[in-house]
Amino acid sequence: MYISQLFIPITKNLPSEAKIKSHQLMLRAGMIKQSAAGIYSWLPLGFKVMKKIEQIVREEQNNIGAQEMLMPTIQSADIWKESGRYEDYGQEMLRIKDRQGREMLYGPTNEELITEIFRSSVKSYKSLPQLLYHIQWKFRDEIRPRFGVMRCREFFMKDAYSFDQDEQSAKKSYNKMFFSYLKTFKRMGLNAIPMAADTGPIGGDLSHEFIIIAETGESKIFLDKRIFEINLEKYNFSEESLERMRNEFSSYYAVTDEKFNQKEFNQKVEKKNQFTTNGIEVGHIFYFGDKYSKPLNCSFDNQDGKKSTVKMGSYGIGVSRLVGALIEAFYIDGRMKWPRSVSPFDVVIIPSINKNNKENLEKSKRIYDELKKQNIDVLLDDTDENLSSKFMKHDLIGIPFQIIVGSKSAEEKFEFKEVNMKSEIIDLKRIKQKLQK
Amino acid sequence: MYISQLFIPITKNLPSEAKIKSHQLMLRAGMIKQSAAGIYSWLPLGFKVMKKIEQIVREEQNNIGAQEMLMPTIQSADIWKESGRYEDYGQEMLRIKDRQGREMLYGPTNEELITEIFRSSVKSYKSLPQLLYHIQWKFRDEIRPRFGVMRCREFFMKDAYSFDQDEQSAKKSYNKMFFSYLKTFKRMGLNAIPMAADTGPIGGDLSHEFIIIAETGESKIFLDKRIFEINLEKYNFSEESLERMRNEFSSYYAVTDEKFNQKEFNQKVEKKNQFTTNGIEVGHIFYFGDKYSKPLNCSFDNQDGKKSTVKMGSYGIGVSRLVGALIEAFYIDGRMKWPRSVSPFDVVIIPSINKNNKENLEKSKRIYDELKKQNIDVLLDDTDENLSSKFMKHDLIGIPFQIIVGSKSAEEKFEFKEVNMKSEIIDLKRIKQKLQK
Repeated sequence: MYISQLFIPITKNLPSEAKIKSHQLMLRAGMIKQSAAGIYSWLPLGFKVMKKIEQIVREEQNNIGAQEMLMPTIQSADIWKESGRYEDYGQEMLRIKDRQGREMLYGPTNEELITEIFRSSVKSYKSLPQLLYHIQWKFRDEIRPRFGVMRCREFFMKDAYSFDQDEQSAKKSYNKMFFSYLKTFKRMGLNAIPMAADTGPIGGDLSHEFIIIAETGESKIFLDKRIFEINLEKYNFSEESLERMRNEFSSYYAVTDEKFNQKEFNQKVEKKNQFTTNGIEVGHIFYFGDKYSKPLNCSFDNQDGKKSTVKMGSYGIGVSRLVGALIEAFYIDGRMKWPRSVSPFDVVIIPSINKNNKENLEKSKRIYDELKKQNIDVLLDDTDENLSSKFMKHDLIGIPFQIIVGSKSAEEKFEFKEVNMKSEIIDLKRIKQKLQK
Repeated sequence: MYISQLFIPITKNLPSEAKIKSHQLMLRAGMIKQSAAGIYSWLPLGFKVMKKIEQIVREEQNNIGAQEMLMPTIQSADIWKESGRYEDYGQEMLRIKDRQGREMLYGPTNEELITEIFRSSVKSYKSLPQLLYHIQWKFRDEIRPRFGVMRCREFFMKDAYSFDQDEQSAKKSYNKMFFSYLKTFKRMGLNAIPMAADTGPIGGDLSHEFIIIAETGESKIFLDKRIFEINLEKYNFSEESLERMRNEFSSYYAVTDEKFNQKEFNQKVEKKNQFTTNGIEVGHIFYFGDKYSKPLNCSFDNQDGKKSTVKMGSYGIGVSRLVGALIEAFYIDGRMKWPRSVSPFDVVIIPSINKNNKENLEKSKRIYDELKKQNIDVLLDDTDENLSSKFMKHDLIGIPFQIIVGSKSAEEKFEFKEVNMKSEIIDLKRIKQKLQK
C-alpha cells in the first residue's frame, strides 16, 4: 500500500490524556481514535496489528482442538441471576433495559452463557472432554478507564472454556492450555511468565496469570530469574510431557504482589536469582470446578450411569490489550519495532523524494511491485516529506524492516535496514531472501 | 474433524418458534442457539459458515481499495444528537446509561461515528477519495424479532463509507461498490439483483438494494427477467466500463413493492418478460451527499482553497443475515447443499459402521488422513448410527460432497457423490482431483 492512500492520521502532538507510552504511540501513529471514555475505534494500522494477534491466538487454540464459536455481546440477566453473579458484579457490569423492559447486560465474561449452552446438549461422559472458545468484544464499565487499550471499557478478548468429567481430566485440559498459552505468546515475540494466582474458595493450584515484563506494567512481580531459561522446545502435548513442563515451572518462584511474601521469597530464592520488576497481565487461566455448572445444573451421566456435574475451567487472553502490551515491550527509546509476526507491514520503502526529481520514487515503485509479487506486504512512503521527518514517522509505525532509497542506493543496490541494526547495501534478490526468512 | 468431537448439537425436533426453513435448519443442525429473543450464539458449524462469508466480503472490499478498520459497538449519544437522529431513531435504538449516567447506545449503524472520525483527519482534497469499512456487530431492538438470523436484534454487518470531493467522484465510488457487490454475492453462488430503491429527500438514482430470489423472501419483487442474462464477465473496474455496466442494469425494470407501479411495469416490460416473485435483501448501497457531513461539519479545502463538505455514501452487507439467506436459497425439498465457497467443510466421509466390524471406519480414517494432507477440510462421520440416519443428518449439514464407505466401495474405490447428483465409484486420486477443482 502507498502511505498516501492509507488512512493513517498521524499526529505530532503528544496527547495530554495519554500517560503511558503505548497509549501515546497508538494515538500519535493513528492506530486508534477515542470515541468515548474508554471506548476506541481501531483505525487501519491498529486494526491490522490486532487482527494478526487474533489470528495467532486462534491458530494456537485450534491446534489443541478447541473449537471456535461466537456468543453474542448482549446477554439476558436471567442466567446471571441463576449463577448468583448478577448482584455480585457491581457497577462494572453495563446493565441495559430493552424496549420490552427486559433486564439485559453487555457481557463482561461468558461463564454463565457457555454453561447454559453446554448444559442443553451434554448427555453423557461421551460428550466430554470438550474445549470451546470465542473471540468477542466485552464491556466492563471501569470507573476510571485509562492507559488507552490497556484498561478500556470495550475490549476484545479470547475466552475459552473446558468441560471435563472429573478433576483429573480437567487438569489435563488445564495443562494443555497452559502450554498452548506459552506458545501463543512466544509467537508474538513475548516471553510470558506464568504466575500462580489466587484460587480463592476453589482452592488448589490451577490458576495462573501470564505476565510479560514491562517497566510500565501495573503489577509488581517477584521471581526467580532462572525461570527465563526454561526451554519450551523440549516439551510436547503428551500428558506426561505437560506434567513435567508444569513441574519445571512450579519449581521456580514467580508471583505478583497479590501473592507475594518477602520471607517466602528469601527462603525459596537465592539473593542472586531474585528478580523484582513490573509486568502486564496478558492472559489468565483458571480451573473452577463446578462453580457455575452446579448452580446452572450442567450435568451428565457418568460411566456408572449416575448424574455428575461437569467440571469447568476458563482461559482468557486479552487480544486488544496485547496490542498495548506489545508496544510497552517493544517501544524503546522512542523507537517502535514490531515483532515480525504482528507487524502491520513486512517492510517499508522510504525514498528520499525531491520535488524536481522523482527518480527515487520511480525506483521505489519498481521495488514495491517486485515485493508485492512475492506476497510481501509492503508499505511505500510516497509522501514528499524530507527523509528525517519520514524516519521520525516510521519510528512510530514500527515496521521492523526498511528499504531506504536515497543517496546510498546505487544502480541496483539499496540500503536495507532492520530497525536498531546496521544497514547494508544489497540488491533486491538478497532483500527478498531476507524478508522471506 | 471427526463428528464425534465436533460440538454440533443436532436436534430431531422441529422447533415450534421457527417459521421459515433457514431458522428451522439452523436450530436443527446446531448452527445457532438462541440466548435471548432475537439474540443468538453461533455454534461451531454456523460460525464456520459465517466466517467464510465474512472473508469473501472482506476480500472483495479490499480488492476495490477499501480499508478495513473497526468501530466499537457502544457509542456516545452526543454525535447522534449532532446529526439529529437521536430522537428520530425511535425505540429500535438500544439506549444505555453508563455508571456515570452518560447517554450511550449500541450502534445500529455508523454514519455519525465514521463522519466524526473522518472529519478530524481530513484536510484537503488530497485526502480524498477514501473508502473505509468495518465488519462489526450491530443492534436493533426489533419489536418482534423473528425468522432466526434474518430479523434478529444483534446482527453482524459489513458497512463501508465513501468520502469524495464532489458528486461526480462520489458516483465513481458508488459504481465501484455496485460492481463489487455483484462479484461478492456471485462468489457465494448467489445471483443478487440490484433494484432501484427510494432516495427520499436526497433525490437522484444512487440507491440500490441487492436482492436474491427466494420464495420465502419478505419483499415482493417485480422485474424484467432479461436482467438475469447480464454477463458480468465483460465488465471491469474502469470508469467507462462501470458506467456501461450501470446502464445495462438500469435498462431493465427491477423494483421491490416499495417502488412498484403496475402501469409502469406493463409499459416498460413485455408480458413474456415480466417476472414477479419474492426476494431477500442482502445488501444496500446509498449515496447521501452531505446528509451527515453537513451537520457534523466534515469539510475539506478544495482545489480553489475554499471549504467544501465531504460527499458521502454508505454500503451495507448483512453478513449474519446471508447465512440465513443462503439457506433459503439452497435448502430445497428438505436437503441443504452449501455452495462450495461457504460450505462448513469441503467433503464428508460417511462410513457404514457395524458394531462388530470397524473395517469401514478404518478405511475412512485412512481416506481422512490422505485428504487432510491435501489441505482438504474434511468431516468424518464416525458415529455408529445407521446409514439412513446419517444421510438424514447430512441433508441438514449440507456439505456438498460425500464419500460413502459402505457396500458399494470396493478395494480401493469409493462411492463419491455430489449432493443432488448421481454417485460414482472412483478411486481416491480421482476424488482428490474433483475436490480440488
